[in-house]
Amino acid sequence: MANTFKTPIDAAELTARLIRCPSVTPVEGGALVLLQDLLESAGFDCTRVDRGKVSNLYARWGAKGAARIFGFNGHTDVVPVGDEAAWTVDPFGAEIKDGILWGRGATDMKSGVAAFAAAAVDFVTQTPPDGAVVLAITGDEEAEAVDGTTALLDWMNEQGEAMSVCLVGEPTCPNEMGEMMKIGRRGSMTAFFTVKGVQGHSAYPHRANNPIPALARLVDRMSSHELDRGTDHFDPSTLAVVTFDTGNPATNVIPAQCKAAVNIRFNDAHSSASLTDWLRAEADKIATEFGVTVDMTIKVTGESFLTPPGALSDLVSAAVQAETGVTPVLSTSGGTSDARFVQHHCPVVEFGLVGKTMHQVDENVPIDQIHQLKSIYSRILRDYFA
Amino acid sequence: MANTFKTPIDAAELTARLIRCPSVTPVEGGALVLLQDLLESAGFDCTRVDRGKVSNLYARWGAKGAARIFGFNGHTDVVPVGDEAAWTVDPFGAEIKDGILWGRGATDMKSGVAAFAAAAVDFVTQTPPDGAVVLAITGDEEAEAVDGTTALLDWMNEQGEAMSVCLVGEPTCPNEMGEMMKIGRRGSMTAFFTVKGVQGHSAYPHRANNPIPALARLVDRMSSHELDRGTDHFDPSTLAVVTFDTGNPATNVIPAQCKAAVNIRFNDAHSSASLTDWLRAEADKIATEFGVTVDMTIKVTGESFLTPPGALSDLVSAAVQAETGVTPVLSTSGGTSDARFVQHHCPVVEFGLVGKTMHQVDENVPIDQIHQLKSIYSRILRDYFA
Repeated sequence: MANTFKTPIDAAELTARLIRCPSVTPVEGGALVLLQDLLESAGFDCTRVDRGKVSNLYARWGAKGAARIFGFNGHTDVVPVGDEAAWTVDPFGAEIKDGILWGRGATDMKSGVAAFAAAAVDFVTQTPPDGAVVLAITGDEEAEAVDGTTALLDWMNEQGEAMSVCLVGEPTCPNEMGEMMKIGRRGSMTAFFTVKGVQGHSAYPHRANNPIPALARLVDRMSSHELDRGTDHFDPSTLAVVTFDTGNPATNVIPAQCKAAVNIRFNDAHSSASLTDWLRAEADKIATEFGVTVDMTIKVTGESFLTPPGALSDLVSAAVQAETGVTPVLSTSGGTSDARFVQHHCPVVEFGLVGKTMHQVDENVPIDQIHQLKSIYSRILRDYFA
Repeated sequence: MANTFKTPIDAAELTARLIRCPSVTPVEGGALVLLQDLLESAGFDCTRVDRGKVSNLYARWGAKGAARIFGFNGHTDVVPVGDEAAWTVDPFGAEIKDGILWGRGATDMKSGVAAFAAAAVDFVTQTPPDGAVVLAITGDEEAEAVDGTTALLDWMNEQGEAMSVCLVGEPTCPNEMGEMMKIGRRGSMTAFFTVKGVQGHSAYPHRANNPIPALARLVDRMSSHELDRGTDHFDPSTLAVVTFDTGNPATNVIPAQCKAAVNIRFNDAHSSASLTDWLRAEADKIATEFGVTVDMTIKVTGESFLTPPGALSDLVSAAVQAETGVTPVLSTSGGTSDARFVQHHCPVVEFGLVGKTMHQVDENVPIDQIHQLKSIYSRILRDYFA
């Protein structure tokens, strides 16, 4: 059962061993067990924080109440294989060809977890710091993300466990190693509108109240509105009407209702609450103009957040530059990640390798990039505790 | 097989016999056979003009090339029974209770056909006119109406058969016998729009081109446009957007296309061609503004038409007034009827009884109203040939 490890830890070999654990969300697949063995052998206190079907691992080296606690966050779950016939390798085989490691999770993000686990183990065993190192690793980032990092952070709060700063090891570089780190993310929310009028015969529209023109004008107004022109660290917020449906097959009938959904990706000039107020006001105007009722339901995926450039981003940037010769752009682009949860806990940035093949068939990562990532994480730890 | 008839023909009894023929479109059900027997026994030349599944009957009394030929048009087919359990009588039983005749087609329009057939038979047998009387009766007015009156008129043109004027016996009175005749109808057409953009992720709308806001603005512009304010004999034209559909279930995806349909009821200020030009121009403007493609398909149900008030409407109006004491309004309201086909052939008006229960369960007609309608049609024939 027990694994044997010798330092320095080979992060590429650890990645391969993790890929062989078929940990499609929410299956643990042996990945967290493997990491727990490694971390415990290096003196980490480990706790499984499982919730529902989801397994999570919390590991701390050093004193709980230390003044400086460096945290890593990542996930061992992977998205499904998809069309297995389209793969040219075994998705869970961790095959190595010409310096490339292949398999589901190779970039997203078993390599990232392996790199920070290897860096952390080497660091605490070779140069024990005056402080603590925490690894908060979840088994559900790809699916609901309800019982994952959120549950870990809740548990940490209950237990008085903390991180001073946190680095999320998700892939962040679009094409070239080192070119981008994330210091925040846009928020995301979806508004669902239902407009109700009065059904009738299309030959006698004055006896009906058609909801479609009302919703069409609402859609036109929302789409034409400039939410902002971007902020210091964010691109302009965007609004996309993703659907508009009536489902009326009869050309001689004016329908009673129609629906639309609008997805908004918003920067730090807004919050889901401020946007909800704006949407509600636009909906109310339409309701008054057309004499219809406009129901609105809001689903918030995440608020926008920013860790302003400063000590943490400087630390990561310097390490990336020293190891790759590339200065990373401080970006807030892209979708969402578990950093949206961590930001409520402590300053957080994201840095990882090139994510080109994530979620695709034949996901793969160059072995050299894993070693380079471990070097960057190792330098971050050294510099942080220096 | 042969039926026996004695003049004067009892129009209510003839209606009852027609109701007992279950002639749901396109089934003939014995209705045209019954009428042919009656008309031939009175000296009419009868021809069955069947096309596809549809049966039609053409009957002429008098010379083919007569200077004055009075025509009647009507249909013996009926709409389906619908929820049979909801009927309180046998829909094809032609039951009479308290002076009311019950059954499918009682008002729409076996009573109308019976009234004009009875009036015509009595007229030609009792007071043979200097001219001809034509009955053009179809077995499909309620369904596709492709092989019905249109086919009859085509056949008449081929054969050199003609009508100088025509009266369509559809129910035209909203509430009270005699209150309304139709001298025209609005046209009806439907435009189907498909807007195509470029699909994409809703987080990156600048990489996509969303078709929904384009179609929404097109819908808003069309709906806000005043087509006209009515003409001498018509109400204002109307436009109703009847559906708008995308069918995109994913809130993180901008769809590639969406569709809408618009139904227009138009008066004599327009034609389907002029409206198509306007719609095409609006669609092209949207295509240019949004960089999308806008496909448009037009389906024309009928053009608007008008038989201007004059000799024919005066003739009908005077007869209605003499028999009922009510002066009929000359209207162009309502949906479509086969008059839209007849208008290409000769001046046409529509007059019939009260249509309140048409297409409903427990369709019924007062016996007195059938007799009154026959009296009106008889007077029209007398006055026309006087």
